[in-house]
Amino acid sequence: MADPFEQLRERMGELADLRNTSELLDWDRQTMMPPRGALSRAEASATIQRLSHDMFVSDDTGRLIDAAAAALDGANPDSDDAASIRVVRRRWEKARRVPGRLAADITRAASVGQTAWIVAREESDFGAFAPYLEQNLDLVRRYVDCFDDVDCPYDPLLDDYEPGARTADLARLFDELKAELRVLIGTVAEQAGRVDDGLLHGDFPVARQRGLVAWLLELMGFDPAGWRIDDAVHPFAAGFGSHDIRITTRWDESFFPTSMYSAMHECGHGLYEEGVAESLERTPLGHPESCGLHESQSRLWENMVGRGRPFCGVLAPRVADAFGGPLAGLDGETLYRAVNKVTPSLIRVEADEVTYNLHIILRFELEQELVDGRLAIRDLPEAWNARYKEYLGVDVPDDADGVLQDVHWAAGLIGYFPTYALGNLVAGQLFERAHADMPDLDARLAAGDLDGLREWLREHVHRYGAKFSATELLQRELGASIEVGPLVQYLKGKISRVYDLDLDAA
Amino acid sequence: MADPFEQLRERMGELADLRNTSELLDWDRQTMMPPRGALSRAEASATIQRLSHDMFVSDDTGRLIDAAAAALDGANPDSDDAASIRVVRRRWEKARRVPGRLAADITRAASVGQTAWIVAREESDFGAFAPYLEQNLDLVRRYVDCFDDVDCPYDPLLDDYEPGARTADLARLFDELKAELRVLIGTVAEQAGRVDDGLLHGDFPVARQRGLVAWLLELMGFDPAGWRIDDAVHPFAAGFGSHDIRITTRWDESFFPTSMYSAMHECGHGLYEEGVAESLERTPLGHPESCGLHESQSRLWENMVGRGRPFCGVLAPRVADAFGGPLAGLDGETLYRAVNKVTPSLIRVEADEVTYNLHIILRFELEQELVDGRLAIRDLPEAWNARYKEYLGVDVPDDADGVLQDVHWAAGLIGYFPTYALGNLVAGQLFERAHADMPDLDARLAAGDLDGLREWLREHVHRYGAKFSATELLQRELGASIEVGPLVQYLKGKISRVYDLDLDAA
Repeated sequence: MADPFEQLRERMGELADLRNTSELLDWDRQTMMPPRGALSRAEASATIQRLSHDMFVSDDTGRLIDAAAAALDGANPDSDDAASIRVVRRRWEKARRVPGRLAADITRAASVGQTAWIVAREESDFGAFAPYLEQNLDLVRRYVDCFDDVDCPYDPLLDDYEPGARTADLARLFDELKAELRVLIGTVAEQAGRVDDGLLHGDFPVARQRGLVAWLLELMGFDPAGWRIDDAVHPFAAGFGSHDIRITTRWDESFFPTSMYSAMHECGHGLYEEGVAESLERTPLGHPESCGLHESQSRLWENMVGRGRPFCGVLAPRVADAFGGPLAGLDGETLYRAVNKVTPSLIRVEADEVTYNLHIILRFELEQELVDGRLAIRDLPEAWNARYKEYLGVDVPDDADGVLQDVHWAAGLIGYFPTYALGNLVAGQLFERAHADMPDLDARLAAGDLDGLREWLREHVHRYGAKFSATELLQRELGASIEVGPLVQYLKGKISRVYDLDLDAA
Repeated sequence: MADPFEQLRERMGELADLRNTSELLDWDRQTMMPPRGALSRAEASATIQRLSHDMFVSDDTGRLIDAAAAALDGANPDSDDAASIRVVRRRWEKARRVPGRLAADITRAASVGQTAWIVAREESDFGAFAPYLEQNLDLVRRYVDCFDDVDCPYDPLLDDYEPGARTADLARLFDELKAELRVLIGTVAEQAGRVDDGLLHGDFPVARQRGLVAWLLELMGFDPAGWRIDDAVHPFAAGFGSHDIRITTRWDESFFPTSMYSAMHECGHGLYEEGVAESLERTPLGHPESCGLHESQSRLWENMVGRGRPFCGVLAPRVADAFGGPLAGLDGETLYRAVNKVTPSLIRVEADEVTYNLHIILRFELEQELVDGRLAIRDLPEAWNARYKEYLGVDVPDDADGVLQDVHWAAGLIGYFPTYALGNLVAGQLFERAHADMPDLDARLAAGDLDGLREWLREHVHRYGAKFSATELLQRELGASIEVGPLVQYLKGKISRVYDLDLDAA
């Protein structure tokens, strides 16, 4: 009879293989697959997911977990082995609650919903999409019903993307953040004329952009021996183990920051995947699980490094070299101000760092109201538009640029949005601490040396994989809870500089 | 209780999904994967194969087959449904005989063997590879031992790649073919100076080759909506269902025929995958099973069309346009003679149409001797070299260009080689019949119209998928057994023309 812990490890290894396989099916679908392959691909993905789910939730897996836990009794609870059993048991107990048929219905409805959404968005017709959203929401409620011991119906949804997080805790943090951001946005609105980002718009050949992005990624740690970069309409990152990292970006010939910052963002995700300790490969801890921590990495690289003053000094001459013309002689300060212009706008993925979190917070609020029934789907567009007017001061002209702009709800992803803002909060805390630990960090960034920061993140975040929740990791590495302060201080500092204000003193 | 036939269909659909997934893992490995991803990919592939094997050989699948067969009792035995149950039952009964552990050992040894082979071939060191071949051969013998009711130990191996084929039948065909080819090669040897292929060698920029290949593939029926072409060191084709066809080619800057004919070859495979009737998708008949039939398609397009006199008249001006220089004004007759030069040589994949089959036949003979123990592995290089001298008159200078040249044995593929020569025989029969059915076929090919031939192949071969074995298909569509005559007649006709001889009258 084999060691029960080894048996569990083998089972978990197979599940990791299925996860990697499922990710490859999806990566290929978005980057390589000829369009007519879609139907066959959907079948293959559904089958891998079903097999994976069945293997995981089986009684047999439960027995392996119990036996492995007993065999490990007395081991250091902080060890990777003990942590992996805790993590697996938590996932198993949650997954067991969900009938296989419901899980399959959710997967199928997500696929159908996305197809309907594409058409509805093109025609800006929320009415055409509403029945599919109704279906997804109905399935989400049935999913929530599988968990009768929760404080709030939104909790089990949020927990899928942010293990251990509570809706009430996030709501408190977001209320605090919202208040700060609305003041900040009000202040900037009075100074709107002070920053010009006209130089970011023009004619930027894709081949030149590719050269710029290749240089940038190499600086961050992209290594062709273990990485790829490809084009995708909606950029994303994937990791099939820590030695096969795939990132994507998109190219806008009239606005060069798109490819550059999207590549930095996805490379930030990729570095996280790559940085997981080799010993965790094919274990339950081998793939980062907290979406908030994941997003903290992408946003930290994209915004705090990429749109930060020190590194803008490195970027500017490269941008000037790549495109010349009106950008010849571009200096760091000019680039810095342009890429940090604050403009309340309609579209989340194009939002600046300050307004971005309000796009998230209003989605988080609307999702809770939809789930608990306070808001009816037919009233959603109106509620959406009202909240955009209230928080960002913008009028939503149509549903395509409003409530239909994101794929998430069409894909049944409810509970995901808040992890984006959570990621920004965590990034603020990590970036603050990295500065405290490395007093010369800004000087290094200004010299184009990104290695120190990457290694600091490896040490404090990446290597743990899924061992700790976001809250646990911050407690352990920073001795802190998740907080709003560092992000707000960081944003105030940036706005002060970009808009020639003195917000820190306020 | 669901219809048992529907239940079986669903199970088979899932197995088809796993097959497509497994093919994607392999396609990606050979075209896209960064090198460091290899280990994680090997784990994922092994897990998918194991799950697929376990699902297929289960008692449960056996019960579904029995129930479905009973439910279908009385149906037309020629119907797709009846055929699919026959095919599944045959595969299930064969797979059941093989213990799961042995199947896993074979997969693992194949992976290890290929790695060892790469090093051994680089160093031309058969001794270093011998232990791995010993291991593979030992596993092959244990595999053969699972089948105690066969005439010949090579039969169950051959049957894996060529369902229903018997070693004795193939040996008779190949003996006849060998005798004909050796006479033909002897005749050509006396005329070696008559054909000059110097014009095929030179400096051919890859970008120009890509343009030529793109034009050629479009003519054959390549459609970007459902196809991709990528680069690969060892070109191959894959189909994930009939709407997602992936082919590959390689580029030799000093010899343009490599990319052109490799692309035609793989496109021939791709057309077969694409041409399977839509109604067979996700059924046991949905993926062509006979390697001989598959190879008949690739070789027919590559050689009989691509190196045929009519189509050379279409190719020549395109080649001239693409490369100019010494090729400016190239005419069809000159190209035709150059690409059909017969030269006994060392390397199978570079062999001309006439000598190619001797490369195969000697491997088929050596494989049988290895399996039944007449030949010891330590004596294999000597036997290899002796047979090359005897059949092709060439001296093998080292193992890298001799017994180590192919990956097949390293990958545990024993029984596969003969399907290449079988494919050539079948191609000869199909091409002869296509001419009989379409008297204007040569005129169409000379006009660059490949549609008629493709549709003829769709009608007589492609649409059936795995419904018929090679023998059954030829019987049904051509009213013939597998025969040597048509290929030999075809080759004699070509050699007569290229070498200004009159072999037909001989």
